[in-house]
Amino acid sequence: MAAPSRRGDPQRRMRPGGRSARVNEAVLAAVLDEIVESGYAKLSVEKVATRAQVHKATLYRRWANKEELVAEALLARAGRVVPTPDTGSLREDLRRLSHAIGAYLSSPSGQAVVRTLVSDAGQVPEIAVAVRAFWTERFARAGVIVERGVERGELSPDTDVAFFIERLIAPLFLRSLVTAEPIDAAYADRVIDALLEDRTAG
Amino acid sequence: MAAPSRRGDPQRRMRPGGRSARVNEAVLAAVLDEIVESGYAKLSVEKVATRAQVHKATLYRRWANKEELVAEALLARAGRVVPTPDTGSLREDLRRLSHAIGAYLSSPSGQAVVRTLVSDAGQVPEIAVAVRAFWTERFARAGVIVERGVERGELSPDTDVAFFIERLIAPLFLRSLVTAEPIDAAYADRVIDALLEDRTAG
Repeated sequence: MAAPSRRGDPQRRMRPGGRSARVNEAVLAAVLDEIVESGYAKLSVEKVATRAQVHKATLYRRWANKEELVAEALLARAGRVVPTPDTGSLREDLRRLSHAIGAYLSSPSGQAVVRTLVSDAGQVPEIAVAVRAFWTERFARAGVIVERGVERGELSPDTDVAFFIERLIAPLFLRSLVTAEPIDAAYADRVIDALLEDRTAG
Repeated sequence: MAAPSRRGDPQRRMRPGGRSARVNEAVLAAVLDEIVESGYAKLSVEKVATRAQVHKATLYRRWANKEELVAEALLARAGRVVPTPDTGSLREDLRRLSHAIGAYLSSPSGQAVVRTLVSDAGQVPEIAVAVRAFWTERFARAGVIVERGVERGELSPDTDVAFFIERLIAPLFLRSLVTAEPIDAAYADRVIDALLEDRTAG
């Protein structure tokens, strides 16, 4: 994924752990807090600057506009909260992955972030490109779990990795975004049971 | 589902095919056109009145606010475009249902409507209640297809009808709302094949 273009001095931005990195962190957190509290439609660079206690001019030096700011904030957070487990067991890896996704989708901040990705913000071209790149990358990471299962002989060699992942996570998103039904560990496990029932080798 | 409360003379509203019914139809169509063109956030009663060529006061006599108007418009349309087939074959019924859902989710108006249901509008309590009632009713209708399949012996008697329907439509919504991948008939058929593989009796 191409990094969003930024303004200002790249040296200053890149120094890890410095004042610049702290400002970045504070700004991206402020964006998410604003989205969680008020939604994407009401977000403005002014509100983010106030919340992060940063000058508006500082924000505009680093991000060209609200859209770049939102794209970066969404992707920075979501990539951090769902790990890719590697326990040596396909079922256990799938359980950990889908429990983490379910917990994220059930949390207020996860709900706000995913709804923002799906809603108006996802229709903004600058954000849509980043969002698609994000999902491609997340799906590829999740696919590694399935590939390892195939290598260990836990899944048949003709398993379609991407399709398997779609069917694993789709019911979680359906409940989170559409029907508003609970996503607990028992539900995630049922989805996995149903998937493994017809896909395990032998 | 309880009908949204409305103001004004119920006699006048209920006469089918009269001027009142035509105004209703024009207003609800105008709401959807506005959502498709500009999204929920920018919708206003004024814009709907202008597009439908109806006085704002007429709108306020029938609907208390923008939220009631949107809830009724969304539900009136979406219930009409996806039928419940009854061909005598489970697979054929599922194909027709999921092709219809896929076509709807792929159409510009279907995309706009579903994104509105999911996004900010779905967080407005008046709309959220109507939306939940809508999905409950749609799922129950789709479930009839699965129940007939169980009665005909095409599915095992222990089939969980609601879970089956979730797994049928979840991948379609995932592609429509999240990954923006195409939903064609071939994809819908793959989902059905995968579902029937492990659920058919005998």
